[in-house]
Amino acid sequence: MISGGVTAPRGFRAAGITAGLKASGLPDLALILSDVDAIAAGVFTTSQVRAACVEYCRQQLTLKPSARAILCNSGQANAATGAAGWEDATVCANALADRLNIAPAAVLLASTGVIGQRIKMDALLAGIPTLVAAASHEGGDTAAKAIMTTDLVSKSIALETTIGDRPVRVGGMAKGSGMIHPNMATLLAFVTCDAAVSTTLWQQMLSRAADRSFNQITVDGDTSTNDTLIALANGESRTPAIVQPGAEADKLEAMLTAVCQYLAKSIARDGEGATCLIEVQVSGTTTDREARQIAREIAGSSLLKAAIFGHDPNWGRIAMAAGKAGVPFDQNNLAVSLGEIQLMANGQPLTFDRVVASNYLKAASQGEYLKTDTVLISVAVGNGSGKGIAWGCDLSYDYVKINAEYTT
Amino acid sequence: MISGGVTAPRGFRAAGITAGLKASGLPDLALILSDVDAIAAGVFTTSQVRAACVEYCRQQLTLKPSARAILCNSGQANAATGAAGWEDATVCANALADRLNIAPAAVLLASTGVIGQRIKMDALLAGIPTLVAAASHEGGDTAAKAIMTTDLVSKSIALETTIGDRPVRVGGMAKGSGMIHPNMATLLAFVTCDAAVSTTLWQQMLSRAADRSFNQITVDGDTSTNDTLIALANGESRTPAIVQPGAEADKLEAMLTAVCQYLAKSIARDGEGATCLIEVQVSGTTTDREARQIAREIAGSSLLKAAIFGHDPNWGRIAMAAGKAGVPFDQNNLAVSLGEIQLMANGQPLTFDRVVASNYLKAASQGEYLKTDTVLISVAVGNGSGKGIAWGCDLSYDYVKINAEYTT
Repeated sequence: MISGGVTAPRGFRAAGITAGLKASGLPDLALILSDVDAIAAGVFTTSQVRAACVEYCRQQLTLKPSARAILCNSGQANAATGAAGWEDATVCANALADRLNIAPAAVLLASTGVIGQRIKMDALLAGIPTLVAAASHEGGDTAAKAIMTTDLVSKSIALETTIGDRPVRVGGMAKGSGMIHPNMATLLAFVTCDAAVSTTLWQQMLSRAADRSFNQITVDGDTSTNDTLIALANGESRTPAIVQPGAEADKLEAMLTAVCQYLAKSIARDGEGATCLIEVQVSGTTTDREARQIAREIAGSSLLKAAIFGHDPNWGRIAMAAGKAGVPFDQNNLAVSLGEIQLMANGQPLTFDRVVASNYLKAASQGEYLKTDTVLISVAVGNGSGKGIAWGCDLSYDYVKINAEYTT
Repeated sequence: MISGGVTAPRGFRAAGITAGLKASGLPDLALILSDVDAIAAGVFTTSQVRAACVEYCRQQLTLKPSARAILCNSGQANAATGAAGWEDATVCANALADRLNIAPAAVLLASTGVIGQRIKMDALLAGIPTLVAAASHEGGDTAAKAIMTTDLVSKSIALETTIGDRPVRVGGMAKGSGMIHPNMATLLAFVTCDAAVSTTLWQQMLSRAADRSFNQITVDGDTSTNDTLIALANGESRTPAIVQPGAEADKLEAMLTAVCQYLAKSIARDGEGATCLIEVQVSGTTTDREARQIAREIAGSSLLKAAIFGHDPNWGRIAMAAGKAGVPFDQNNLAVSLGEIQLMANGQPLTFDRVVASNYLKAASQGEYLKTDTVLISVAVGNGSGKGIAWGCDLSYDYVKINAEYTT
């Protein structure tokens, strides 16, 4: 693990500034810039209600999967804004392209903030020269701050490995699911990489990495109109191009997946009102996909999340949530552990020390961020080789407070 | 609407007693008894983790879809109890059959209460003579009370119509989704009817009615190990037998559906910590199934439920929830209303009086049970003829409190 976030890989610059889009005066406009054309892969919200920027990126990446720049604003989501919102997106992309002297098609866009509100275009357009001037090879962390909405912490990471004896780096930043009305929860994540890799492989790697990270986190089961994951690879490491599956491709994908998982876990941990991260490991299914499905269902159970907030080692709720995932298994094979404590075996409860188990949960809620504040739930449903992990957070009074207390 | 609950239809007796299964001393053992063999239809939990009583009923109804008696205990769920739990279920059925002098196969079973706990067999078996002696043609309401766990109100209804110039009645009782650790949420519903109807038609009617009622309610998205809906029809109205589709079958199914919907709405309204009932009406899809799916997704959104608790007319959360249901539609056709107030049309927000809209929500939380305490959300997604309704409740501090506060 190295420092620098999205600007750790070579040939990437970034910046975050206050352009005046947010009433709070906090940073609200971010730029990620590759010195050369980068291949670009994307994963977007599956919602039928999609923001203009999502439609814009999907169209651009379908036409040509490469980019030089990602422009991201916070403050207004530009979702449910119709034709005017699409026009705003186009104007943003053109303005940045003009300033950078690149093709408009080389600009990708993301927005997060209030749904139904158009971007404050005057402020954004006036901010572009400052933003471009601020872009630097050390700007990763400031960019990560400018995409936050109600996130409590900024989320940024970079990893390094070697391919063909030369170092290759992957960096990433994300914002998550803190949400105070009237902001929507939005998951935005941007990944940079200086490896040389084929377009097809890169998109495949990103889709698989998303399935093992962002698609495996849940805060409250809701899906944003703006969810966006974009990954750029610009080849500036000058390592041999990875154009087919094999050991080097696996190495790169492992690093990409690790970056996505770190960011995904950060988002789950920073869920509204959360006091701990919940990691659910499922094994014994026929396929990995089935295990991931069961893990997601457990991590997303409101009943279980409330029990964990209350430090209640309620194995019944874990069994219940496993059972409703739509994946067939023999309930007589069900085994459940909490940390090192076995709660259930062969589909039946075991005798365990409730105080010790409750203290395990209590310790997690007082632990260190992303280290000792994780509650580990392990579930086995059979003898299959399938396995999968999902992450979530507990359900606290503050979740309800954050999402309910708003005076119209 | 008439009084009497499950004993309103002719030829049904019922009772509810305190057998000592619950520590609280509240009624905990219920019986529904038909004077003659009744045809029986059932709908059960889709969970992979199923209580012994659910497995027992599924097996009995597969062998022979008829019954004389339903025995239901609260206090222990007899789920995750393995072979011993199955044995207990069999002993219960045999003991009741002995006392009634009927075949054990004519007894159906249901349990609700603590998961992982076997039924207190001594208490249950000792209670059977008293229970049978107490069964009366006026016992519907006492039976409805004996199946409650943490429900705040008992749920009971009966309707009457005429078929072939003679009155036909459908009665029903249910328990719902109040849940305090360590009880699981369980949906139990029992319907009685004195019409004469064919086994095949009756099961088809019940499955469709469940799809339009119990399968359209959500309190927190969790599914119990014990969910059971059983409907008996004993022909004691002496009306002509309904053996094929047509006007009389439609009339009976409409009444059955109305009973199920009343009970389902009662359960949603009585969700833990709920201050109001939320009814979501969706139209404009290609099929009714799609409309029901979107309605369920909206009724189940934690974000929206918290907003309604906070009296916040947050149309963005309604649009978000509609979009994530997995049903394709053109977001430019989306229209959303709250009561009579239109919030969104053509996929874009409208100007509306936020104070009036917030007061609408405030009034609902202070309204009369199942009458003026309903928040109506109407969503149109296109011009199709599909429509569907779902019901839910708001998400309050008390939901978290009820499900978290437990001292191990």
